[in-house]
Amino acid sequence: MRMAELSERSGIPTATIKYYLREGLLRPGHRVTATQSTYDDGHLRRLRLVRALIQVGRMPVATAREVLTAIEDESIDHHRRLGAAIRALPNDGALDAAFDAGELDEETESARRRAEELFAELGWTHAAEVGASEAAYRVLVGAIAGLSRTGYPCELTDLLPYGRLADRLGVTDIDMVERYGDPYEQVEAAVALTVLYEPVLLSLRRLAEAEESNRRYSPGN
Amino acid sequence: MRMAELSERSGIPTATIKYYLREGLLRPGHRVTATQSTYDDGHLRRLRLVRALIQVGRMPVATAREVLTAIEDESIDHHRRLGAAIRALPNDGALDAAFDAGELDEETESARRRAEELFAELGWTHAAEVGASEAAYRVLVGAIAGLSRTGYPCELTDLLPYGRLADRLGVTDIDMVERYGDPYEQVEAAVALTVLYEPVLLSLRRLAEAEESNRRYSPGN
Repeated sequence: MRMAELSERSGIPTATIKYYLREGLLRPGHRVTATQSTYDDGHLRRLRLVRALIQVGRMPVATAREVLTAIEDESIDHHRRLGAAIRALPNDGALDAAFDAGELDEETESARRRAEELFAELGWTHAAEVGASEAAYRVLVGAIAGLSRTGYPCELTDLLPYGRLADRLGVTDIDMVERYGDPYEQVEAAVALTVLYEPVLLSLRRLAEAEESNRRYSPGN
Repeated sequence: MRMAELSERSGIPTATIKYYLREGLLRPGHRVTATQSTYDDGHLRRLRLVRALIQVGRMPVATAREVLTAIEDESIDHHRRLGAAIRALPNDGALDAAFDAGELDEETESARRRAEELFAELGWTHAAEVGASEAAYRVLVGAIAGLSRTGYPCELTDLLPYGRLADRLGVTDIDMVERYGDPYEQVEAAVALTVLYEPVLLSLRRLAEAEESNRRYSPGN
């Protein structure tokens, strides 16, 4: 298809598509003449992902480029590519700052042991293996250290119910990813769905808290 | 206790405590002489909450003040105060922007109907009642509209498993809150735990995704 059709089918203005091309977020089209190129369904799908990351997920262009590069890396197998793409997703600044502030002090070391115990309890052998090389692991350790420093509950028994629910979330997420046919699309979907379902999950949790608090304490109940 | 002891027991430098006092995040102490005040366990607990929101949760001072004001509002009952405090929690900019960009267009209206169906399916009568007055409701609708606009799965059947897991999260959260004895402490804990467990939950979800993908696709399995 030509640029005009790509724009119409994706719902993204031509100027924006050209910007994504210049920024390397979208591969160049197939050159037909000196001034015209055509685009295929792969371009359309990629545009959808770029839009999910940048317009909906509000990810900076440079970060989106890193995530897309991880997806493109054909030197690694499917599973590791999926992992690399999820790892390249940014943690929001707040989380990273919380971890960096820790500087592997005593609290952080203790939080790290707590996280390892949690993985053992959940049977998460992969998480135990990759350890701190995984951004999500560092975020988790930072968050546990933050809880501990402020004196809020973060014993193994406190964390375990969250770990069990997260385990079921992971299964739900990967089930959704498997609806996509080819491995390449699956990696794209894993990244997009991880990002796009975060606000769904956090807002549902707050609504569920209000709901549960209403069930327990509402004068009428 | 004197300021020096408050600083030692909270682990927060005197200069920072004085800053929180000036900003109205902490009530003044009990005046003893013209230049000295004493502080009680309420001050200590409040400092812990302020630290959780500002230092760990990276909340702007103005926002933290709004959350604390909601907690203080003694004109409303326990349940509604808990709700008000959680409602005053900021949604991160990304989420609000995603909603604002929606402007109640067709996608957003359709997402709103989807959210209502989800509440009905989950038996969430409170969420259905409060509707868009709840920030989390608006975030949810914006997130569903974002999924829909980018063509990713967000049918009722896709959302339902997340709703069911969120329902259990809400119960887990409120159970943890109920460990605190008095209603006032419970409201403080609800706010702090909602904020501090968000990174725990999101990082555990990403680790669980990697774990599940490893289970399914790792060459050794």
